[in-house]
Amino acid sequence: MHRFLFSLSIALIASSPITAQKTNPEDVAFIKQLYNKALTESSAYPWLYDMCTKIGGRMSGSQQAADAVIYTKSMLDTIHLSNVYLQSCMVPHWVRNNSKDKEVNEHGRTGDDLTFMINSKTNISLDILSLGNSVGTGAKAIQAQVIEVDSFKQLEKLGSKVKGKIVFFNHPMDPTQINTFSAYGEAVSRRVYGASEAAKYGALAVVVRSMTNKLDDYPHTGVMIYKDSSLKIPAVAISTNGAEKLSELIKKYPESKLYYRTLCAMLPDVESYNVVGEIKGSEFPNEIITVGGHLDSWDPAQGAQDDGAGCMQSMGVLQLFAKMGYKPKHTIRCVLFMNEENGGAGGRKYAQEVLRKGEKQIVAIESDEGGFTPRGFSFEAEGAEGDARFASLEQKLLPYFEPYRLYFKKGGSGSDIGPLRDQKTLLIGFVPDSQRYFDYHHASTDTIEAVSKRELELGTAAMASLIYLLDKKGF
Amino acid sequence: MHRFLFSLSIALIASSPITAQKTNPEDVAFIKQLYNKALTESSAYPWLYDMCTKIGGRMSGSQQAADAVIYTKSMLDTIHLSNVYLQSCMVPHWVRNNSKDKEVNEHGRTGDDLTFMINSKTNISLDILSLGNSVGTGAKAIQAQVIEVDSFKQLEKLGSKVKGKIVFFNHPMDPTQINTFSAYGEAVSRRVYGASEAAKYGALAVVVRSMTNKLDDYPHTGVMIYKDSSLKIPAVAISTNGAEKLSELIKKYPESKLYYRTLCAMLPDVESYNVVGEIKGSEFPNEIITVGGHLDSWDPAQGAQDDGAGCMQSMGVLQLFAKMGYKPKHTIRCVLFMNEENGGAGGRKYAQEVLRKGEKQIVAIESDEGGFTPRGFSFEAEGAEGDARFASLEQKLLPYFEPYRLYFKKGGSGSDIGPLRDQKTLLIGFVPDSQRYFDYHHASTDTIEAVSKRELELGTAAMASLIYLLDKKGF
Repeated sequence: MHRFLFSLSIALIASSPITAQKTNPEDVAFIKQLYNKALTESSAYPWLYDMCTKIGGRMSGSQQAADAVIYTKSMLDTIHLSNVYLQSCMVPHWVRNNSKDKEVNEHGRTGDDLTFMINSKTNISLDILSLGNSVGTGAKAIQAQVIEVDSFKQLEKLGSKVKGKIVFFNHPMDPTQINTFSAYGEAVSRRVYGASEAAKYGALAVVVRSMTNKLDDYPHTGVMIYKDSSLKIPAVAISTNGAEKLSELIKKYPESKLYYRTLCAMLPDVESYNVVGEIKGSEFPNEIITVGGHLDSWDPAQGAQDDGAGCMQSMGVLQLFAKMGYKPKHTIRCVLFMNEENGGAGGRKYAQEVLRKGEKQIVAIESDEGGFTPRGFSFEAEGAEGDARFASLEQKLLPYFEPYRLYFKKGGSGSDIGPLRDQKTLLIGFVPDSQRYFDYHHASTDTIEAVSKRELELGTAAMASLIYLLDKKGF
Repeated sequence: MHRFLFSLSIALIASSPITAQKTNPEDVAFIKQLYNKALTESSAYPWLYDMCTKIGGRMSGSQQAADAVIYTKSMLDTIHLSNVYLQSCMVPHWVRNNSKDKEVNEHGRTGDDLTFMINSKTNISLDILSLGNSVGTGAKAIQAQVIEVDSFKQLEKLGSKVKGKIVFFNHPMDPTQINTFSAYGEAVSRRVYGASEAAKYGALAVVVRSMTNKLDDYPHTGVMIYKDSSLKIPAVAISTNGAEKLSELIKKYPESKLYYRTLCAMLPDVESYNVVGEIKGSEFPNEIITVGGHLDSWDPAQGAQDDGAGCMQSMGVLQLFAKMGYKPKHTIRCVLFMNEENGGAGGRKYAQEVLRKGEKQIVAIESDEGGFTPRGFSFEAEGAEGDARFASLEQKLLPYFEPYRLYFKKGGSGSDIGPLRDQKTLLIGFVPDSQRYFDYHHASTDTIEAVSKRELELGTAAMASLIYLLDKKGF
């Protein structure tokens, strides 16, 4: 469209929100300046670009994760904060390929994860990726028939029929959920606990349909957890196109066997770090407002949307305050948490340190749903007291976000700040648009190309604005 | 993020909007069904995929535009409407390369548009694209010094100093405008009227910085208009990176000349068509609710976001109603307008035909801001009467969109439906998220890869829902 010829005149008289009476003009102007600076001077996008292209994926315990700790600390050092430091924590060290050399299997193929269907007619390769924390088969592959199920209930009905077989969880994310996180929440238990549930009935391994709404060829990895440490069987994700294909092959060639080899393994824990930067509060230095994302990411990609975006936005918030010369009343702290993806060690360690130091963690905001166009904020609120607090914040602060079309809702916040729940901290999740998140989530497509600079920086601005208001007007 | 471990339980108790008392449960359920079907059964995305990959860019008067008319009519024929037809209109036929063979210039280079800076030190090629409707230089290139300006005001000050020179409009879109269309509206007069303004002072040609917020190597074309048909000089767009480079070169080598050759030309008008499909109204068949986008597009790309998306969403609205077996009271008509980009012939012809047939065009909705996540609708409203009508619609209909987080605003609608303004039609623009639109707009990057299926189909659902409500509850 060119729009200029016919409707420009009308577009320019578009209505402006009627918030004058509910907002303080000085704060409105400050927030507009935060947005302007985010869209013109923020380093969040260039930082993300550098980390994605020069370091890449950052599995807990990996060299890349260690490099990312050094890189982000050095960038925080450039923006003139009161304090920048590392917070040590032990993290799991899971590796996708534990073999010394690239192993060659009996079919003469090399590579990390390898799966294909074998039958009298055909030999079809399928795209898989081991799930994080899974045991591998080692060089000796499993070769077994596949049984497809949709749910744990269906698995339970089959019971001992899955003994000696590979269980294939083929449950698509519900496309009719408008918020894609709702569909993810409903589907993901298959990925997390599928191996343990199948092992109970004697299955040899599991294959789980990738957690994405998109039909494509990229397997999406993610964490899995063994409920019973004595019953560990291997688990992989298969691409959605691969899942459709596998389902078809099972029906067409019921006698087929799946050749299944993975080389992943869990190694001993290693030391890693949360990266912390802060601007000391002028009135209440021991009262902390934290903003954060997680620095670790899955290995197949660059971890751009998950969660390089949230890390750089959080660092960007502090950079914006520094650029504005803003002296907060409370201490504003940015935390890049380590090991969100397959353990949560950084989040737990951070909460312990707050307690140990006797700090008062008043607010924590997490950005871990990607750097897409901001839609609003989600406030954890429990019981009547939580409801009242939410209503009060909504009335007091939401009018400032009307020009930016953001909303407040009650709901979850983020898993890194979750351990602060016991400390009566106000927990808030940044909510960007969710439609494209699972196109990239935990797959090789999660690269810097998936991130829009403007969308990312609008998120930086939105978070900085909320923190400014909470710091100035209470919480 | 995996989110599952810590916050799933809280995410699932997220608040549901308190719209019960303001909405009719039957209509709420119908709208939910429209969304469900759009996200699972709509053909809008597959149609768009086919048109983009099999036909591609669709300049008015081109073979591809003719192919797109046939393709979309044949798709409308598959969805069991009351009536599908073509509406003839004459359109301009501008071509980017009017030479019979690829011409070779004196520097031995071939190609359509060609520009490079020449000086004693260097010879640097720059990425340009002729603006639509521009005259070309022909095989004989212009070679002249370049004068950079930001605005028409600055050009006026320079006056006769630009005589015999090439004028370079290097005004970036304002990054601090949250809605990117506002920044476009402020900047685009340079592209549209720059050549005419510069020609008044004797300039030989113009180069215009591309209308995008992104710094990249893709020139963004678009329409230009000659105010005075006796003073036609050539006009090209230069990529934003190219504009930065050109600006630098002018300062570094003031004696440089720009070699500038374009082979475009305007040929005689040709016959083309609007494509129309409709479901006849059961109570008021002569009262029309129209939904549309424009079928023509610029040539360097596939015209996926601009405006293949709007066309397929409009066809998708009728498909959804057909799938639901909905019998509208008023006639619901989908119109794929021809020639929005460089003339508007289709929009004018459609309005004339409504008058000629004595139809009552009660509502028209246009989708021409891309197939991104829906944010709301923009209603044209003039004077006190317009304001009152808007307020009434907002009160009556907006509660139905609360679960989908859409807003209503007063503002522009769309250029194809603009000619209906005189007929007291309620004009509405579909408003998707604007952040990425100008990354692709009129550039070679506007391909099917730029479109998210979910985002597109949510737009189909939003438009169908609004039309359903207007048809059932009045307007």
